[in-house]
Amino acid sequence: MKNTFVRDLKVGNRVQNLFVLRKKELKEYDGKKFLKLELGDKSGRIDAVMWDQAERFYGNAEVGNIVEVRGSVTTYKDSLQINVENLKKAARKVDLKDFLPATEKDLDQLLLGFKETASSVKNPHLRALLDDLVNDSSLMDKLKQAPGGKLWHHCYLGGLLEHTLSVAQICEKAASLYKLVDRDLLITGALIHDLGKINQYSTSGFIDYTDEGRLVGHIVSGYQIIAEKITKINDFPEELSLQLKHLILSHQGELEMASPVVPQTLEAIILHYADEMDAKAGAFTHIIEREKTKGKKWSDWVPLIKRFIYLGQGEE
Amino acid sequence: MKNTFVRDLKVGNRVQNLFVLRKKELKEYDGKKFLKLELGDKSGRIDAVMWDQAERFYGNAEVGNIVEVRGSVTTYKDSLQINVENLKKAARKVDLKDFLPATEKDLDQLLLGFKETASSVKNPHLRALLDDLVNDSSLMDKLKQAPGGKLWHHCYLGGLLEHTLSVAQICEKAASLYKLVDRDLLITGALIHDLGKINQYSTSGFIDYTDEGRLVGHIVSGYQIIAEKITKINDFPEELSLQLKHLILSHQGELEMASPVVPQTLEAIILHYADEMDAKAGAFTHIIEREKTKGKKWSDWVPLIKRFIYLGQGEE
Amino acid sequence: MKNTFVRDLKVGNRVQNLFVLRKKELKEYDGKKFLKLELGDKSGRIDAVMWDQAERFYGNAEVGNIVEVRGSVTTYKDSLQINVENLKKAARKVDLKDFLPATEKDLDQLLLGFKETASSVKNPHLRALLDDLVNDSSLMDKLKQAPGGKLWHHCYLGGLLEHTLSVAQICEKAASLYKLVDRDLLITGALIHDLGKINQYSTSGFIDYTDEGRLVGHIVSGYQIIAEKITKINDFPEELSLQLKHLILSHQGELEMASPVVPQTLEAIILHYADEMDAKAGAFTHIIEREKTKGKKWSDWVPLIKRFIYLGQGEE
Amino acid sequence: MKNTFVRDLKVGNRVQNLFVLRKKELKEYDGKKFLKLELGDKSGRIDAVMWDQAERFYGNAEVGNIVEVRGSVTTYKDSLQINVENLKKAARKVDLKDFLPATEKDLDQLLLGFKETASSVKNPHLRALLDDLVNDSSLMDKLKQAPGGKLWHHCYLGGLLEHTLSVAQICEKAASLYKLVDRDLLITGALIHDLGKINQYSTSGFIDYTDEGRLVGHIVSGYQIIAEKITKINDFPEELSLQLKHLILSHQGELEMASPVVPQTLEAIILHYADEMDAKAGAFTHIIEREKTKGKKWSDWVPLIKRFIYLGQGEE
Amino acid sequence: MKNTFVRDLKVGNRVQNLFVLRKKELKEYDGKKFLKLELGDKSGRIDAVMWDQAERFYGNAEVGNIVEVRGSVTTYKDSLQINVENLKKAARKVDLKDFLPATEKDLDQLLLGFKETASSVKNPHLRALLDDLVNDSSLMDKLKQAPGGKLWHHCYLGGLLEHTLSVAQICEKAASLYKLVDRDLLITGALIHDLGKINQYSTSGFIDYTDEGRLVGHIVSGYQIIAEKITKINDFPEELSLQLKHLILSHQGELEMASPVVPQTLEAIILHYADEMDAKAGAFTHIIEREKTKGKKWSDWVPLIKRFIYLGQGEE
Amino acid sequence: MKNTFVRDLKVGNRVQNLFVLRKKELKEYDGKKFLKLELGDKSGRIDAVMWDQAERFYGNAEVGNIVEVRGSVTTYKDSLQINVENLKKAARKVDLKDFLPATEKDLDQLLLGFKETASSVKNPHLRALLDDLVNDSSLMDKLKQAPGGKLWHHCYLGGLLEHTLSVAQICEKAASLYKLVDRDLLITGALIHDLGKINQYSTSGFIDYTDEGRLVGHIVSGYQIIAEKITKINDFPEELSLQLKHLILSHQGELEMASPVVPQTLEAIILHYADEMDAKAGAFTHIIEREKTKGKKWSDWVPLIKRFIYLGQGEE
Repeated sequence: MKNTFVRDLKVGNRVQNLFVLRKKELKEYDGKKFLKLELGDKSGRIDAVMWDQAERFYGNAEVGNIVEVRGSVTTYKDSLQINVENLKKAARKVDLKDFLPATEKDLDQLLLGFKETASSVKNPHLRALLDDLVNDSSLMDKLKQAPGGKLWHHCYLGGLLEHTLSVAQICEKAASLYKLVDRDLLITGALIHDLGKINQYSTSGFIDYTDEGRLVGHIVSGYQIIAEKITKINDFPEELSLQLKHLILSHQGELEMASPVVPQTLEAIILHYADEMDAKAGAFTHIIEREKTKGKKWSDWVPLIKRFIYLGQGEE
Repeated sequence: MKNTFVRDLKVGNRVQNLFVLRKKELKEYDGKKFLKLELGDKSGRIDAVMWDQAERFYGNAEVGNIVEVRGSVTTYKDSLQINVENLKKAARKVDLKDFLPATEKDLDQLLLGFKETASSVKNPHLRALLDDLVNDSSLMDKLKQAPGGKLWHHCYLGGLLEHTLSVAQICEKAASLYKLVDRDLLITGALIHDLGKINQYSTSGFIDYTDEGRLVGHIVSGYQIIAEKITKINDFPEELSLQLKHLILSHQGELEMASPVVPQTLEAIILHYADEMDAKAGAFTHIIEREKTKGKKWSDWVPLIKRFIYLGQGEE
Repeated sequence: MKNTFVRDLKVGNRVQNLFVLRKKELKEYDGKKFLKLELGDKSGRIDAVMWDQAERFYGNAEVGNIVEVRGSVTTYKDSLQINVENLKKAARKVDLKDFLPATEKDLDQLLLGFKETASSVKNPHLRALLDDLVNDSSLMDKLKQAPGGKLWHHCYLGGLLEHTLSVAQICEKAASLYKLVDRDLLITGALIHDLGKINQYSTSGFIDYTDEGRLVGHIVSGYQIIAEKITKINDFPEELSLQLKHLILSHQGELEMASPVVPQTLEAIILHYADEMDAKAGAFTHIIEREKTKGKKWSDWVPLIKRFIYLGQGEE
Repeated sequence: MKNTFVRDLKVGNRVQNLFVLRKKELKEYDGKKFLKLELGDKSGRIDAVMWDQAERFYGNAEVGNIVEVRGSVTTYKDSLQINVENLKKAARKVDLKDFLPATEKDLDQLLLGFKETASSVKNPHLRALLDDLVNDSSLMDKLKQAPGGKLWHHCYLGGLLEHTLSVAQICEKAASLYKLVDRDLLITGALIHDLGKINQYSTSGFIDYTDEGRLVGHIVSGYQIIAEKITKINDFPEELSLQLKHLILSHQGELEMASPVVPQTLEAIILHYADEMDAKAGAFTHIIEREKTKGKKWSDWVPLIKRFIYLGQGEE
Repeated sequence: MKNTFVRDLKVGNRVQNLFVLRKKELKEYDGKKFLKLELGDKSGRIDAVMWDQAERFYGNAEVGNIVEVRGSVTTYKDSLQINVENLKKAARKVDLKDFLPATEKDLDQLLLGFKETASSVKNPHLRALLDDLVNDSSLMDKLKQAPGGKLWHHCYLGGLLEHTLSVAQICEKAASLYKLVDRDLLITGALIHDLGKINQYSTSGFIDYTDEGRLVGHIVSGYQIIAEKITKINDFPEELSLQLKHLILSHQGELEMASPVVPQTLEAIILHYADEMDAKAGAFTHIIEREKTKGKKWSDWVPLIKRFIYLGQGEE
Repeated sequence: MKNTFVRDLKVGNRVQNLFVLRKKELKEYDGKKFLKLELGDKSGRIDAVMWDQAERFYGNAEVGNIVEVRGSVTTYKDSLQINVENLKKAARKVDLKDFLPATEKDLDQLLLGFKETASSVKNPHLRALLDDLVNDSSLMDKLKQAPGGKLWHHCYLGGLLEHTLSVAQICEKAASLYKLVDRDLLITGALIHDLGKINQYSTSGFIDYTDEGRLVGHIVSGYQIIAEKITKINDFPEELSLQLKHLILSHQGELEMASPVVPQTLEAIILHYADEMDAKAGAFTHIIEREKTKGKKWSDWVPLIKRFIYLGQGEE
């Protein structure tokens, strides 16, 4: 059972518990091999080092495995680290929730919401594409688990679905407000805009970027999924295909935000702001929930957006 | 009757028609006074010059007046200009629609929408403020006429109300999505966020910036209107007042966009994106409607946002 | 008596002394309430924690109070913290200078300088406004105490007055150099440009941003003070009012620096550079005085302006 | 025969000659349909208008056709335009060189260079990919014609091949200098980095962006070509595939330059600078050759790079 | 006598008058040489063309000469141009004021001011340097004539001296305000900060950049003048030399403004703002004086600083 | 013998070994003088403090000296520091390689490469300049030792020569590709572009910026060296001199990168990219070599270029 969390470790503690193996490196010091590790759980991460039989233990577990660790907490260069005496892949059944944060919502309900929104699309070509996606059970499985981010917004299992559905709802509203909008195109775009995130993050044990996430990025990954599906659909109109791909590629809104093209259609500019609104609302909510406490009215400094966030009125 | 429009003038035309006087300057050339004018109507603007009795005619009309002009079209330094022979304030009743673009919607309906949205606010302090606004008939008259911009989005009479109502609807949607949102605060912010625009533009004859629009700006103008109303309301909570003022001040989202503070509350970040979405959707719609024609699939270059805009699929 | 300073605390020290209470939060760990505190004095700040009777002690003092603390210095997560055993509001009379830095100049002399400069203004409307300010004793009291900044320049009690007077002197010089300058307008602008800082910082015990400082900002706070004063003056010319307000609003010089409008008048552009020169000269002086020592010729890296600062020639 | 060029047209000229039809729009004025056209040749472009039988003539030719035009040169709103009396698709055989600039080099030689460079790659996977490309004759045909740009560098038929070969040569040099470079990977990247440009520009009659060029962009277009080829190659290593795709995606070097990811591998950073060097050297050369004349030592202002360019020493 | 000015030329005018030759190029069209010229005077510039005996006339005058031109005004591609029939170097004595704007102040007085300020410096090393400069009559002659800019501020003969003296006065004020300032160092820096402008502009006939102005820039040109003078002074302290050079190199304040180093000393940061204040005050004054007229309250749009400038209250 | 390295120090260690003295300051605490020191070697740096006889020991060694230190490792404010008991200038002969990183290449070979490249230049003026440089043995000695940077690229003794030769080779390649390039000018520019770095860094004991490096910068330092050499060469053409100086001044490519002018010649733009390519390739190589280890595929975050760097494929 997981009963020791990284956040609570102190110098001198004896440790015998489960952690995720986040990094392992086999290094050499003074002619002797040692293991440099990073361990973690849902509460944080900590460095670890193992001096004995480093080469043998190197093979005991892979990054992403849940491992059982025995050792003691020391400090090294002013940071805590665990001096590991033994490390092996967890044999016991573990509860992934101890290691990875997850949405509070029901994943099946979220996925159902995705499918229902897809089935509201009338345009036959777009609907064919969405049906292909919905019927691709491997893809749906990934979608159901995928986080929406690593650190910033919707950074938990199921976060991608949550985000996708909110964006779709804002887009639905916008489609009712602006007469020139092609509603089916916009809703389809909303459903698939972040699909590439299923390849951008690995979630075995902890959320991290995959090589594809770094070298290709989620925008182009998602583009490729859709491009391949479209080539297999008969008579998918070329113009519609370009408009839809444009929604994926431009949804970050600015080149600086990693979109290779800026929004050039009405649907694209709306999707961008719907995405931004939900992402930022998610991030603000995340910060407020994490930091709000009696006596604290302002968040700590948030470097990514260079500001403090108001946590709400103080107690009465 | 207005039957000659600036857009159609050609060299050699005789002109005897109504225009708005957009600029007038009394200048001197070679010891002789002359009038340098700018005339306009809803189709565009044109320079004009008057050499005889410049000083007398200078007093005939003020900037913003509808004037009756007699003269002929020539060129000067490669631009068209009207050589004015006579100029006087229009005596005839004019139809302002010939000079100023206006919303296609019903202004009374729009104003009613504003008032109904206001009356949906339950928080007594915010409601008191909104009631004050709604009961300020001079302010409501201005609001009804005000444009939402000069050149970019909602740049026509009634545009401010149109924009305000759309933003409020998007915010209503957001309030239903994000549990931590104070709905009444957000809706009130949506209704007043651009209120300062009633002082930013003059609309007598044509839309232009007022001195206040330039020297103070619509954000702070709107702030001041609200700040003054609030001081007259008994027991308006200080904290609520700050939060509401913050919505006005931060709604442009970034310092570079002229907001003196960035959004630091959940409501503020949502209002910002609702505002952006509606402004950009309005601007895209405006461009598409103006430029779409048979055989043209892309707009001309739009310098303000540095891109071409897709006008929709070509003819079949 | 204050005889233990934060800067000098070491692990293992017993502490029984006065500090400012900078933050207090009532949190929960493992089902038990505890207090998370931040204490400080003029030499720095330190975290503190209190485990016993947290709820009771929570009410003992408010943020900004001088408190008497008993406890011992430990480390937590690689930072020093005080394990508090007892905490109560200081009963003894304290010398605020131990907690808050203050100008070396005479505050009465500074305020006199402000009033004398005000009385040099001849324009009757501007003079009426300045007289109103000078006669507003509550406002003058705040002005006398206010710092000019939190961390960067003139960040000590009286700093705002010091800065204001220097800016006024540079403007006086500029008025003598540039013939088109309205000297009275410029000097008035210099005197009031940062007036909103009296509402931007709280100075009870330590200098920090107020909610108004964050949600509204000192520029608009100052604008509002002046706007309210002007409405009470008979026949204050509208044009002059706009020009004066413009000086406050534009004095930071760029939108990115939080001015909602850029300088558009000759006086505004001069005021901006006078303000910048004095702010930067103050900041450089502050760094040089703090860091200069035998054997050190360059300051540490200054992140805010991304450079090292030359401290002066080395010893001979 | 093409003997009248746009650059030389003057008001009053009678015109009966060949031009490229660059734009056509069917518009309406005062209840009457008319054609708004843009015509061009290698020397420039000119607006044209046709009032009679607009609807009939609208169908006579498509954008990109070479058309025979009869009419006369007038001015409209201070610009030259042709008043068209007759317009029909050119029946005569035309020399495309009159309409489109082309490389001075031999296209077959350039293509041969491409193929030889491809055949120098030893890595079997990369070589298999390059062989696939080289054996795709449709793709090779497009590559042979494609320009490297629309206005800025290598903006002529064959320009893409010229640019590609130069970049490959610089990369070859770099591979000899930096020991950690994977030469085959780098050379393959050089050969394919701009491949998407074959879909970005239409070259029928004149060089312009395609819809795909605008909505998807050449980076992602090229990515897709390669991604599809790779999926058809047996056992192409996943890691190598990601590295190669990364070369395409990151070659513009910065997000602001439309790369969705920044260079993260040694080969990627080298390819980026090789690309930049050749692009800029091409652009500078283009400007110097176009503008250098006796008595002129500096180019006109070049807005895109905000500078004048030195054309070389003056005459002796 | 100069009695025809560029600003007043109209199509059809016969011209026989003096102009500055600003550009001349010998070009070829259709096998025939022709001259492409640019002529100017203090009121503006105009293109000109000469078809007969182009090669012979090419040698008649050099760029910068005052030339007598005979011809007539036509239009070409929508711009005015002079069709030149005859062109020769002016034999008559000309009044340079017709061609080049100059300060309204007395140049001898300005130079005297420079020398007096120099003689107020007490530090023997700095004084030796300044004496060297003042005694370098060739340099003083250039300084007396030099403009402070080409288009933006102090862009007239004598402008450099005017600007230099104002900056020195502001620095004198600052030296009295900030106790750590080395007054002699700061004043010397003020006097020499823009000295390189004597090499940056050619002023024969019109103000233009020299090759050195473009390829090296005024900052480094000025640096070199001072560096060479210093090497000839005995025992000039190395540290003082670096500090002084730093004042020249950093005075533009930011790398983006072409300073190769940012201000790192107290004197440097003050000099920068004194320079900025005077430059901007000069530019604003220039615009106000040029554009202020009855009925005009705001300048035209000023692209360089992206704003309109307030010209002062309207007439009463 | 150096057998204790900073990287390996731990709390409680006794130290008696050689270090470089990187900083020394004589400060005062509570009326008592103490020494604040920074020590280092090739493995890192560490703070140190000395309480006894601080004033006496202050004179024992200068910054940059190799010193023998006796003391023990403690912590202060969460960082390691050495409590120094004795400190004296090293009497024993030391191996500089323990303190300063150096190129792995042969310095004589590198210098020979520089001289051979110089002797390949045919243009007599440029060759005369290069001969002057090569024959300036003091300058050559400095060049041979100089690093190419402090932290980022080629940051080791001999790094400047390494970098210079690589840039020259890339430029040689470019000269063969672009017909308008003046090869001799470009190669000369490559050889001297970073020459100012010999004055920018001090390398006595450790690499640090000199005062000149900070106050003047390597670009202008190098400019001055060349400017002085040129003035001593008879008949060096003015135009060639400007072009060459321009190569030095503009080689960083952008004003923001500290070049006071942007590249305006063909040679300048090529040199800039050759420099960038080699600098970035050097930096990437440096990171890969330092961080690559078994099990690690991505570098740590690299703040300067805001990305992770791919270290190569994982183990097989």
